[in-house]
Amino acid sequence: MSIITIVGAGMMGTALCWPLADNGHTVRLGGTPLDEEIVASLHATRIHPKLQRRIPEGVTVYRAAQLPEALAGAEVVVSGVSSFGVDWFARTVGEYLRPGVPVIAVTKGLEDQPDGTLITLPEATRRRLPPAMREQVSLNAIGGPCIAHELAARRQTAVVFCGTDEAVLARLRQTFTTPYYHIWLSTDVTGVEVCAAMKNAYALGVGLAVGMMEQAGADGLARMYNPQAALFAQGCLEMRRLLEITGGGMENDTWLPGPGDLYVTVFGGRTVRLGKLLGQGLSFAEARQQMAGETLESVEIATRVARALPKLAARGLAKLEDFPLLLHIDRILNHGERVNLPWEAFFNRP
Amino acid sequence: MSIITIVGAGMMGTALCWPLADNGHTVRLGGTPLDEEIVASLHATRIHPKLQRRIPEGVTVYRAAQLPEALAGAEVVVSGVSSFGVDWFARTVGEYLRPGVPVIAVTKGLEDQPDGTLITLPEATRRRLPPAMREQVSLNAIGGPCIAHELAARRQTAVVFCGTDEAVLARLRQTFTTPYYHIWLSTDVTGVEVCAAMKNAYALGVGLAVGMMEQAGADGLARMYNPQAALFAQGCLEMRRLLEITGGGMENDTWLPGPGDLYVTVFGGRTVRLGKLLGQGLSFAEARQQMAGETLESVEIATRVARALPKLAARGLAKLEDFPLLLHIDRILNHGERVNLPWEAFFNRP
Repeated sequence: MSIITIVGAGMMGTALCWPLADNGHTVRLGGTPLDEEIVASLHATRIHPKLQRRIPEGVTVYRAAQLPEALAGAEVVVSGVSSFGVDWFARTVGEYLRPGVPVIAVTKGLEDQPDGTLITLPEATRRRLPPAMREQVSLNAIGGPCIAHELAARRQTAVVFCGTDEAVLARLRQTFTTPYYHIWLSTDVTGVEVCAAMKNAYALGVGLAVGMMEQAGADGLARMYNPQAALFAQGCLEMRRLLEITGGGMENDTWLPGPGDLYVTVFGGRTVRLGKLLGQGLSFAEARQQMAGETLESVEIATRVARALPKLAARGLAKLEDFPLLLHIDRILNHGERVNLPWEAFFNRP
Repeated sequence: MSIITIVGAGMMGTALCWPLADNGHTVRLGGTPLDEEIVASLHATRIHPKLQRRIPEGVTVYRAAQLPEALAGAEVVVSGVSSFGVDWFARTVGEYLRPGVPVIAVTKGLEDQPDGTLITLPEATRRRLPPAMREQVSLNAIGGPCIAHELAARRQTAVVFCGTDEAVLARLRQTFTTPYYHIWLSTDVTGVEVCAAMKNAYALGVGLAVGMMEQAGADGLARMYNPQAALFAQGCLEMRRLLEITGGGMENDTWLPGPGDLYVTVFGGRTVRLGKLLGQGLSFAEARQQMAGETLESVEIATRVARALPKLAARGLAKLEDFPLLLHIDRILNHGERVNLPWEAFFNRP
């Protein structure tokens, strides 16, 4: 049994308390500076305000100011921050990491470089760690379809742990596996992480179809799955293209990280809600107002990749016509356009 | 403008009346011997009893006995029969086909041969046509995500027409395309048709997860997408494996025919309903009783492919461990087992 410290008391970080506590580990859940309200609620009632569920017996909750204490002696560190917290995690938590203690992150995203190159968040984290730690810490990540509410309810969940060190991955699997939390391993960090990031952009895309149909008005038919399915398929195809560009393993487009994760995200809440509002014809500014205060990682990932693609195209590494859905989403998010799906540009095939 | 005869007045065959009539074609809708009640209803009220919608102006409806008249002068013939009607279509309608008049089918399925070889339904149809016609008729098929109700409501729908003759495909596209019915073309008949068939088996698989969770009882969480997503992903992976075995184009696992069609089928009605009943722990006999009278193509396709796989494995052409979900479904359908998902056997990767 090990001491595991989770940094970030958001929904997904917190949900990992369940398999870890069920396995008898000593679990420490530490808030970031943005989690003060959550931590206060956990201290007062042990109920997580977003999961609306009592955290398992034995989990100890720490405020951000107590992170040094929470991290002391940890044998595994979980990063539960969002993509907006990667810099903070690497620079602040990085000071307390110890050589040989692995990190595993639930964070989803890609970081675009000035020349358009897209790097994974484990790599982005590594580059920001204190220099002495950069080669001393194994940085791993979790991909695949997992809604935090369901993991906390011990629903059957199948995920992928990715990293570069097979021995570390095997140890992590042993630490986290339960009869309801099933873990597969992959050393293809790029492939898993590209899919984990892009599913947010494409779930927004599927949401556009839902919103468009609601806007079109009732005609006695409440169902509207044909257009959703077409956008789901276009999202899968664009994910494959991005795997080709980034050098991710092509098998990732046919298992948990690609279509599996996209499927679950379509049912996952705010990403699709934003897509629906945009699909109804709202501008992004109008939709953003209706979702004030919510973290929208889908906007961030779509914007970053859409910003990178022209640079990659100029370098001969990408073709813009392979990404009509992503670029349409970007025009809505960042260039004032309203939804107008470019059907004829879809499914551009060799 | 052309004369188009649709043979089979089921939901999907009938739904094609909308794009065809909107394009100004002369549309003849002919029932099979199993469609007598539907045809009677259409003659009396013009409302299709299953689509619950009035068919477009100008569509002429024929009884099975009038098929020779319905087919006289047709410039395109649509086969709207189910997989159980392929033999009837080839032998009976085959007598009235004319050289050079293409056929396009909505039928989904695969036919297993005694040695385990799986053939597509266009090929199975060809083998049953009157000998003189076998090389005279271009046999094409429609794949991709399309719920008939939605096409009849003119929802945005994206499909794939597949066949071996590019000129015929281009002509068919021109005949059927409307601003809401978007058509892509593929000469990879095997790839498109393998996905079109298998999505029924794997949508049943996704349904198992829904039923299992309902059976597990309420715990305050109505959502249950993590296990569905895992089975969706396993279905995608097994479809890819079957594409490898059958020589289908590998790109089909990332666009309309693979994940796109599986996505729509999960929302499509009886296939998932059967999966839910089995997921609740019913035996197939018990579930079948609750769905008496319904055509279950998902059972047929799962049974046929599961029957073929051991023969293909014996010939060194398949590995049984690549198909744990399909084989579990087969054990439920044909060997009296109850649901007990083999999680640890999933995602067997090279």
